[in-house]
Amino acid sequence: MFQINENYLQLGESYLFSTIARKVEQFSATHPGADIIRLGIGDVTLPLSPAVIDALHRSVDEMGVKESFRGYGPEQGYLFLREAIAGTDFQKRGIDIAPDEIFVSDGSKSDTGNIGDILGEGNVVAITDPVYPVYLDTTLMRIGKSDKLLLLSCNAENGFLPEIPSKRVDVIYLCYPNNPTGTVMTREELKKWVDWALEQKSLILFDAAYEAFIRDETIPRSIYEIEGASRCAIEFHSFSKNAGFTGLRCSYTVVPKELKATTANGKEVSLHHLWNRRQSTKFNGTAYIVQRAAEAVYSPQGQQEIQGMIESYMQNAAVIRNGLMDKGYTVFGGEHSPYIWLKCPDGLDSWQFFDRLLEECHVVGTPGAGFGSAGEGYFRLTAFNSRERTAEAVERIKNIHII
Amino acid sequence: MFQINENYLQLGESYLFSTIARKVEQFSATHPGADIIRLGIGDVTLPLSPAVIDALHRSVDEMGVKESFRGYGPEQGYLFLREAIAGTDFQKRGIDIAPDEIFVSDGSKSDTGNIGDILGEGNVVAITDPVYPVYLDTTLMRIGKSDKLLLLSCNAENGFLPEIPSKRVDVIYLCYPNNPTGTVMTREELKKWVDWALEQKSLILFDAAYEAFIRDETIPRSIYEIEGASRCAIEFHSFSKNAGFTGLRCSYTVVPKELKATTANGKEVSLHHLWNRRQSTKFNGTAYIVQRAAEAVYSPQGQQEIQGMIESYMQNAAVIRNGLMDKGYTVFGGEHSPYIWLKCPDGLDSWQFFDRLLEECHVVGTPGAGFGSAGEGYFRLTAFNSRERTAEAVERIKNIHII
Repeated sequence: MFQINENYLQLGESYLFSTIARKVEQFSATHPGADIIRLGIGDVTLPLSPAVIDALHRSVDEMGVKESFRGYGPEQGYLFLREAIAGTDFQKRGIDIAPDEIFVSDGSKSDTGNIGDILGEGNVVAITDPVYPVYLDTTLMRIGKSDKLLLLSCNAENGFLPEIPSKRVDVIYLCYPNNPTGTVMTREELKKWVDWALEQKSLILFDAAYEAFIRDETIPRSIYEIEGASRCAIEFHSFSKNAGFTGLRCSYTVVPKELKATTANGKEVSLHHLWNRRQSTKFNGTAYIVQRAAEAVYSPQGQQEIQGMIESYMQNAAVIRNGLMDKGYTVFGGEHSPYIWLKCPDGLDSWQFFDRLLEECHVVGTPGAGFGSAGEGYFRLTAFNSRERTAEAVERIKNIHII
Repeated sequence: MFQINENYLQLGESYLFSTIARKVEQFSATHPGADIIRLGIGDVTLPLSPAVIDALHRSVDEMGVKESFRGYGPEQGYLFLREAIAGTDFQKRGIDIAPDEIFVSDGSKSDTGNIGDILGEGNVVAITDPVYPVYLDTTLMRIGKSDKLLLLSCNAENGFLPEIPSKRVDVIYLCYPNNPTGTVMTREELKKWVDWALEQKSLILFDAAYEAFIRDETIPRSIYEIEGASRCAIEFHSFSKNAGFTGLRCSYTVVPKELKATTANGKEVSLHHLWNRRQSTKFNGTAYIVQRAAEAVYSPQGQQEIQGMIESYMQNAAVIRNGLMDKGYTVFGGEHSPYIWLKCPDGLDSWQFFDRLLEECHVVGTPGAGFGSAGEGYFRLTAFNSRERTAEAVERIKNIHII
């Protein structure tokens, strides 16, 4: 009889955001008139920018004509896009990352989920708590509940930044600007982690999906700004949040060629080689037209347009942050991140506050407890709705008598 | 120190088609004038059909306007596409598959590669030899070289159809019409496998990526045409070959709700539930515009257009098949499949024949040995080039003095 991967049975019944979607659906069904404002899932609302739309139309036309039609592309992504990424996101910022160290993909969720494919099962894996559920769930799928899985608690006391582990850790997921807490890591703080990883020969999986929202130039936008990071870190980027690609699906992962591991019998192996083998065997590249769209993000027009989008979302973040602080809420994040992390008022737990907001304000957020037990008593709001709806949601929250 | 998945070190240095691409690149560099005709990788050459192009332009326009913009879609695919698939590919053919049993994805390579995520490591896995390299490589990535991996030899003697295993097998990959041999399975033959799987409580991973090329109505286009298959089989479909989506990336996988496994302690688990958990955790859905393009394939205009494309490729297959048979080659496949599988003439092995064809005819094919040791001495040609180029390639092959 065939066997399943029984680690799956240790997971929660469903992915966090599927659970929330079902709850909201049920509420809508029983409250047909309710005007629900969604500040829950981190999904954008502004349409794709004109430069991106133009690139899509042009490349669609190419695909309709025999002479310019493109079939299978390189699994790693087209060179035109890898060069644009390396040039703008790294080389212009003085970071030495080459186009062939960049792997274009269909989403950071895929890549942060699949990266475990190339890692050994003997690793001690550390994950912050609270955390983006994908890191935890995909690690559980791979190794199951085990003493090899370490949760690093992030709370108001440590400024939502994990402490360097005192025990052995081989692999750690870090995400800054952080989802869900919206906190950032200074250069000094990040340098501590890189130095620790080099010293311990540990691997950092660095999720930089929100780097475009950083307003302060002294805060690193890539871990590779820190010396030595290309010998200890893989970095994940996404076009979802900065360029509104949540429905278009494009991302990239950087695996530096300097990044090496040693096998049990002492052989040195390049992680770039392993990830390349994984991607060329289990993935067939991102759609050509989507890669042209991503390329357009790097054009002068594209850069200007996405700056406008980011600015607009960050103004929403300020509306939420300031509105809630005025009302007496304790609020974190929202300054270099589209996420606002607030302490649930009145001793409510995360799901109680979720229910109150949904029932009394018709506002959907994400319960902090959904991101891990250290998130209990906290709540995440996102800045991705429109200005009007965001402002209205804040007004509604201010007008209920929780605080 | 962090560890890698050392199973990767047991794989060939690179994915087969990457190796071929490099060889051809080297040949081109040293023979700059050579007019190379590619009948190697199974990549289409006809442009996307007008119905598909229209759907892309329309949906791109939707994405550029706030009111119709779409962000994250359901990880399983939009209902409009799942309904179109269930209706046309199954219900109209009398097969009872519901829309929510269909998972839309970005390619069969991804899904046939990732399906192992939900399977246990104790399974004995059988793979035909020769085989599409993804099944073998991804199984090796997961379990390594082991006596749990069984190769079922397919050769001229058994008509390139595997025999029912005499030993225990828990999971088997079957692909019909077959890549690379182009052979098909009759209803009676396929029924033997379904009956065997039900009897043994084994799982069939059925790759139907080439079903659209079947010309004979008595040959099953889906394993679910066989009674009981929805209790023992997962089926993979692709838009790559029938609708020319190799560069657009869309596919789907059917996991019937009836398909159950039993855990070590006797609990019944639905594979639909597991795959849904895998996809919603490690994948964020296929681009909305690509799903609209796939939907257009099912419109009356789309169906007519793709029938024209398939017909055109099958005429190429006939040109290759008949041309080589005229010349005295022993040829298989090419009747219900875009692949022609031929015996290398003159005692040449697969890579020797590859080199001769490349050097003397400037024609690229795929060495049978690249698909497994039982493919040694065979060679695959594909029908996906243009009529003119295909005919010219056949003329060139006929004019060299191998046979």
